[in-house]
This record gives sequence, C-alpha cells and structure tokens, in this order.
Amino acid sequence: MSYKRYQEIMAKIADVNYASSVLSWDQETYMPEKGAETRAQQLSTLAGISHELSTANELGEVLEKLSNDASLDAKQKKNISESLKDYKDRKKYSTAFVQQMSKSISECFQSWQKAKKENNFSLYAPHLEKLVKLKREECELLGYENHPYNAMLNQYEPKAKTADIEILFKNVRHQLVDFVKKISEKPQNNEAFMHTHFPKDKQWDFGIDLLKQMNYDFNGGRQDISSHPFTTSFGVNDVRVTTRINENNLNEMIWSCIHEGGHGLYEQGLNADDYGLPTGEAISLGIHESQSRLWENNVGRSRAYWKANYKLAQKYFPENLKNVSEEDFYKAANIVKPSLIRTSADELTYHFHVMIRFEIEKALIEGSIEVKDLPSYWNKKYKEYLNIDVPNDSEGVLQDIHWSHGSFGYFPTYSLGSFYAAQFFAQAQKEIPNLEDLISKGEMLPLLNWLREKIHRFGKLYSAEELCIKVTGEKLNFDHFMNYAKTKYGNLYNLS
Amino acid sequence: MSYKRYQEIMAKIADVNYASSVLSWDQETYMPEKGAETRAQQLSTLAGISHELSTANELGEVLEKLSNDASLDAKQKKNISESLKDYKDRKKYSTAFVQQMSKSISECFQSWQKAKKENNFSLYAPHLEKLVKLKREECELLGYENHPYNAMLNQYEPKAKTADIEILFKNVRHQLVDFVKKISEKPQNNEAFMHTHFPKDKQWDFGIDLLKQMNYDFNGGRQDISSHPFTTSFGVNDVRVTTRINENNLNEMIWSCIHEGGHGLYEQGLNADDYGLPTGEAISLGIHESQSRLWENNVGRSRAYWKANYKLAQKYFPENLKNVSEEDFYKAANIVKPSLIRTSADELTYHFHVMIRFEIEKALIEGSIEVKDLPSYWNKKYKEYLNIDVPNDSEGVLQDIHWSHGSFGYFPTYSLGSFYAAQFFAQAQKEIPNLEDLISKGEMLPLLNWLREKIHRFGKLYSAEELCIKVTGEKLNFDHFMNYAKTKYGNLYNLS
Repeated sequence: MSYKRYQEIMAKIADVNYASSVLSWDQETYMPEKGAETRAQQLSTLAGISHELSTANELGEVLEKLSNDASLDAKQKKNISESLKDYKDRKKYSTAFVQQMSKSISECFQSWQKAKKENNFSLYAPHLEKLVKLKREECELLGYENHPYNAMLNQYEPKAKTADIEILFKNVRHQLVDFVKKISEKPQNNEAFMHTHFPKDKQWDFGIDLLKQMNYDFNGGRQDISSHPFTTSFGVNDVRVTTRINENNLNEMIWSCIHEGGHGLYEQGLNADDYGLPTGEAISLGIHESQSRLWENNVGRSRAYWKANYKLAQKYFPENLKNVSEEDFYKAANIVKPSLIRTSADELTYHFHVMIRFEIEKALIEGSIEVKDLPSYWNKKYKEYLNIDVPNDSEGVLQDIHWSHGSFGYFPTYSLGSFYAAQFFAQAQKEIPNLEDLISKGEMLPLLNWLREKIHRFGKLYSAEELCIKVTGEKLNFDHFMNYAKTKYGNLYNLS
Repeated sequence: MSYKRYQEIMAKIADVNYASSVLSWDQETYMPEKGAETRAQQLSTLAGISHELSTANELGEVLEKLSNDASLDAKQKKNISESLKDYKDRKKYSTAFVQQMSKSISECFQSWQKAKKENNFSLYAPHLEKLVKLKREECELLGYENHPYNAMLNQYEPKAKTADIEILFKNVRHQLVDFVKKISEKPQNNEAFMHTHFPKDKQWDFGIDLLKQMNYDFNGGRQDISSHPFTTSFGVNDVRVTTRINENNLNEMIWSCIHEGGHGLYEQGLNADDYGLPTGEAISLGIHESQSRLWENNVGRSRAYWKANYKLAQKYFPENLKNVSEEDFYKAANIVKPSLIRTSADELTYHFHVMIRFEIEKALIEGSIEVKDLPSYWNKKYKEYLNIDVPNDSEGVLQDIHWSHGSFGYFPTYSLGSFYAAQFFAQAQKEIPNLEDLISKGEMLPLLNWLREKIHRFGKLYSAEELCIKVTGEKLNFDHFMNYAKTKYGNLYNLS
C-alpha cells in the first residue's frame, strides 16, 4: 500500500515538474517578449511548489518505511533508494538558500546576456563571482568526497568522479592532439556548398523526413523552432524537440535535428508505467548525450547514412548540390578543423572545448582561479589546446550560457556522451547483423530497437557504469572512440 | 501588511492557474495526440494544487481579517469582498471533487473530439453523462436560489438569474422571429464569392493585419491555429488568440479573428498591477463577450469597417474579389439566413442557436432530459426555431466544444454579450465624435481607448449591471440591439 502512495506522490511531483517544462518550452518557442517577466514568476512559483512537495515530511516517512521493506522487488528497491537519496539531498537546501541561488542566477543570466551582447566581461564578472561563491557553498551543503567539484558533477552525472575524469581527459588529450595534428597536415575537404542558400521551408521538411526515418514518434512528439535547439519531455508520450535553421548553413539544421532526435528517442523509449519514478527517468546527462551523439555522429555522419539520404538531400536542394557527389557530401559532413565556437565544432576537436571548460570550472569551484582572470585564462587555453586566437570575449569566455545559469559540472557530460556513444555503437555493430547495410537502406528500426532493449527501457535501474558494463562488457573505455575516429578519419584524410 | 500577504497568496494562485492555461493552450494548439492522457493528469494535479491554495486556512483568515479592516480603500475592499465570496464558494468543493471534475472534463473533451470526427455521439455520451452528473452535484454543493441552473450560470455571469434570462429570451424570440421572417421574404444578397478558394497563407496574413489594425499587441500576444478559436491569458502581458482557416470560406477566419481579437483587447486592457486580484480580472463572460461582439459585429460587420479594409481584402484576394464591389462585400458579410452551425451564424439568427442550448442545458441540469436523448431533442429544436434539418450529429449536437469542457451556463452569456455590445456601442457613438468616420479610416484607437477607459481597466471593480449603468446610464436593455438590427438590416434588406 505505501509503495502505491509513494508512486502517487512521485506522480504529483512529476506533474508539476512537467508543467514547468511546458512553460519553459513555450518560453523558448512561442512566448511573446512581454510575457517574460510574468513567466519567470510563474516558473519560480512552480519550482517552489515542486520543492515543497519533494521535501514534504510524508514523502520522507514513506521512503524511510519502504527502504526497510524486504518484500519489494529489485526495481522497487532501486526506486526507493534513488528517491531517498534525492529526498535527503533536497532536504539539505534551506528555503533561504534556494531563493538566494535563484536570485543570483537570474541576475547572473541577465548580466551575461548584456555582457555577451556588448562584449564586456566586466558587466558579468561581479555577478558570476557571487554565483560561484554560492556554488561553493552548495558543494559544502551537499557534501562530497575528495573534491568539491564532485558535488557539482554528480548533479548531472551521478557517481562520476572528478579524479576519473581528469585521468580520462588526460588520455583523450594525449591521443587526440596528435591525431588532430596529423589531420591538419592533410589537404582540407571542400564544404563551401554547405554555406550556399538553403531555403528555410525545404530545410524544415528535410529535417522532418530525417526524424521520421529515425522513427521519432510524431504522434507523441513534435518539432518546433527555437534559437537554441533542445529536447524536453512532458512524459513519455509527449516529447518535444526543437531545431534552428540557418539559411546559409545546412549543417546547423541537419546536426541539430538528428542530435535532438537522438535525445527524443531516449525519452520516448523510457518506461511509461514508471511515470515520475527514477526507473522512468534518464540515467544521467552523459547517457542522455550518448543517445544524441550516437545518432548525430556514429549514425548521422556515417558513409552509410548518406548513402541512404543523399538522394533526398539532392531532391530538396537540387541547385545547391548539383555538382556535389555523395562522397563529397559525406566528406563535408566530417570536416575536422579547430575552431572558436563549441556548438559548431567537429566531433574530434569538440572535446578540447569541453576540457577547457572542465578545467576552468573545476578551478573556480576549488578556488584556484578567480573570476576576474577567466578571459585571459580562457584565451590562453584556446591557444594551447586548439591553436586558436580568441578575437573577443563574446566569442570566447562569454560564448556559453551554462555558467550564467549556475550549471557547473555539466560540460564534462558532453564528452562522456560521445565516448559512451562510440562504445555502445561498437557493441551494436557486433550484435546487429549488417548494421551498416541497414543504415545505408534507411532502415533504422533495428538499431532503435537495440537501443530500446539495451538502454532506454531501464531508466535509472542501473547506474551509467553498471549499464555500460551490462551492454558492452566493460566500463567506459575511450579506446572505442579512438578506434572509431582512427578508422573513419584515417580514411577520410588518407592517414597512413 | 496583511493586504500585501493577501496579494502574495493571490499571485501564487494566479501563477498556478495561468500555468494550467498554458498547458490548456498547448493542448489545443500544438500537443501531439498521444500526450492527451498525461496532460489531463497534469492539469488535474494543477487544478488540485490551485484548489488547495485557494482554500487554505491562511487565506481565509487573512480575508476575514481584511474584511473588517476599515482602513482599506474602496478598490481594496472590493477585492477582499470578491475574494472572500470566491473563497467561501471554493470551500464547498473537496479537493477530490475538483480533481474528479478536471479528469472527467479532460476525458469528455477527448471523447467529444473523437465523436465529432467520427460522427458518433455514442462515443461521447457516457462521458458526458458522467460529467452532467458531476455538474448536478456541483449545483447542490454550491447552493442556489430557485433553480439549480443559477449555480452554473453565476460561474460565468455572477448575479444573473435563470428566470430573468427566460424573460429576456422570450422577448428576444418574440421580436427577432418576426424580424428574421421579414428578412427571409426579401431577395437574398449574393455571397457565393465568399466560398471560392482563399489560400491559407493569404488568409493568415490578412487576419494578422486586421488584428494589428485593432491595436492587438503582438509583443504581448500571438495568434495560432486551433480547431475551435479561443482567447486565453497567462497574465496581461501574454494574451493569446487562436483562429481557424477554411480555404473555402473566408468568413470563418475574418470573424473569428476579429471576435477573438476583441476578447484579447479586453484581457490586454486589464490592470497589470492587479495580477491575480478580482480587479485584475474580467467582470463576467457576458461583458467579455460584449467586447468580442462589439468588435466582430458593431465594428467588423459595419459599412465603415469595410470602407477601411476592403482594398486590403482585394489586395490579398484579387481573383476572388475581382468583380465584387465594396458594397457587395459588406452585404455578403451581413447575410441573414437560418443555418446549422452556431459559430458561423449571422448576428440575428445566432441567438436562436443560443436559446436552444440554454433550454437544453437547463433541462440537463434540472434532470428533465437525459444525455441519450440529446440528439433527437437537438434536431427537434433546430426544426422548431430555425426550420433547419440537422443532417448528422457532428454538425448537430456535437458541434460545440462547451459541454465537453464542462461549461454549462456559458451559452447565454454569448447573447448577453451581443446585447451589451449594442448598448455600449450606441453609447460610444454618442461620446466619440465621428466614430464611424474614424473606423472608415481604419483608426480604431479612439474606440479602443474609450473601451479601455470605460470598461477594461476596472476589472471586477463593478458588477456587470453596475458597469452597464455607469457606462450607459441604464441596465441591460434589449432595445439597443433591436434598434441596431432594425436600422442596419432595414437598410440592407430594404425593409419598410
């Protein structure tokens, strides 16, 4: 009986959180500009209600009782233990602290927008300083082992350890730097045609076709336009993706569509019966990102994918692609070149962008660097890792929204996602007969079913590491990514 | 201090209610079909939370205390008395009842959509039966004098009485039947061109132009497509309208755009400082409808309006309107002819549609008719009032969304709105120099400012009757509508 009560309470909390997600989705897609202030207030009220429900004594009592209930099955036990952990974490926050944080984030975000627009870091710095201070306090509130950054990281990637990520990134850097250097010594492939004029409506239709081919369920989802593409869910049966369209760059729509489609498929593949429960939720941002990256990179940027879809691309854009062969298009989809902006980076140099951010935010949280030194530190790192001269702070240290939103510990999950993706995809290649063949015929369902079966349906039943071992027989292993990269880019750039 | 606390509590309740409105808006504009079930549950949870907040003991205590606070000004006193009345009414509902109602409405709405689509009343009937039963319970919960239908009616039109509406409608019927009969004996004006093919995109753009001309604020609002046009508000600074477009009937878009635009202007004209308070809310649906009808009929279907806008119509639809004069178009916009569908009825026979619904829902609530008998009852009434044979239930008893939304007592407010509109507009003609001239030049701002000044800004500071007297010097008087109708249609149909 009390497990049922637990489910009811969790469903109610989920209802409120999903309602917030609807308001946020609307805010990013359709809300008229004057609505912003009231919307912020409405979202804040819902967040407050969600917090009250999530820290209610009744929930704590039900959870404590159930955590000693031997009659529960393994899945029920997992839900209770995860929920109890969340409950205890949330209980650590005082209302005053939550309000202070919310105020600080809102000020920081506003100052970041202005600072980025006006290329003036100093407008942002004092607010970021205050927010970093609060974040450090938050680490102490939450508690951590070894490094305070673990407390931040674990909000997005439970159980991940700063020390492990440092070792991983050291290895990544060691292997990728040389590899990218080799590529950069080779002649660059042509991608000029990607930057001709591609009409918005045609791009939209093409993107919808690609999503349909991935078996993204439009009866339980939809795509809209937003300035920053994202995926959101209001429950398994209503999962929304957004894309953006740049008429002078076909890349933006294609990769954001497939990427968000991958996130969307994960959300659509979660277990509807576990609404509001940990086993009905994504494991971690790293695993979430593995699904988007797998579709974006391992599938979407593959030779087989364009064998399936290039004729369609030419049908939509006959003029732009008149003198472009399938092979040319595939090559253009895989240009490797160090660049300034993370969100448009290729799948190899992307990780340098992440490493720079990881190093900086870790240093901020441990207090070994001050906010005022960020621009020079950032620019130095871009020179060191990417050999890029940062022309201004707007395109440098101010380029990302994350810190202004208080999201510290988020960036590493992007790289983890790519590495998990390579490892999962390598396993799928072993287990699905003729996977490449199927993809080259546009038959994506076998791959999706494999992902559903191996990953999606479990929700948080396993941790990221447990799932990785269960699916691939080993822990996260960067070699899979390097093998994938070496084979693919070795061919593309004629490396010996 | 406690008035401030009252404002805080009311703002929080409004936040939750507006959040529900966002979810409902999305449900009817963009939500994918599979999302329906979860959305119903989410709306039910929000309704429950809103009910809990609205019936919290603290609110009751604050209200009781403030209702004895002589230091409050007149507006504050009005807010407190209105809120206290609402509080006491809401206290009559249990949270369980509210959630049951919300869930029943969502199910009923979904079944209505399906039933209408498939022309199958029996898909809808069991859900409607359940809902009617709940509505009857609701009347008993709320309490009423004389007739249970008063309890329904007063949710939309506070202080209105079933008996008064019966008298009014008897008078309306008495005067209108004869008048419509006279018209029907005259040769009919041509409107065939209204049913040629009008491309969707052009219609959309034309509608947006009309809304802009009305000074509907698109920085604090937007228009979308829905199957049933409606207006909703998430606060004064985010007021949304929807329209529908029938490519073979220009009428639908034009009149729904102007009509919903009128509603939208009322919402945009409310006092932003009174967020969540009675004085920040519309008086009643009758007054709300007076604003939409005034714009739709008294303005939009006037000779002057098409003097202002006919050239634009011809610019959008040069082929369709090639051989149509401004006068022809005006006449076509004012065809009086008994018809099947309420929402496309002319402004005279419209009231017969309302009277039929009023009689039916009154009978349902008092229990003198059963849901299963609705189709035959409906068809009989259409024959009697409008001499129309109803060809199928989709275009008959299933045509309106209202009952599926649990909105009983709503329909009469449409007619009240038209009658208030005629009375207000007659007053505006007296007070705004050269009003017709201004309209014929597309200068709508003087009229809007008059409405803002005389009606919008007050919210619930006055009752409908008080406002009507304040603005026009007398209570609602049907003669104003008949005078308007006789002058206009007398000319249009050459009646002696």
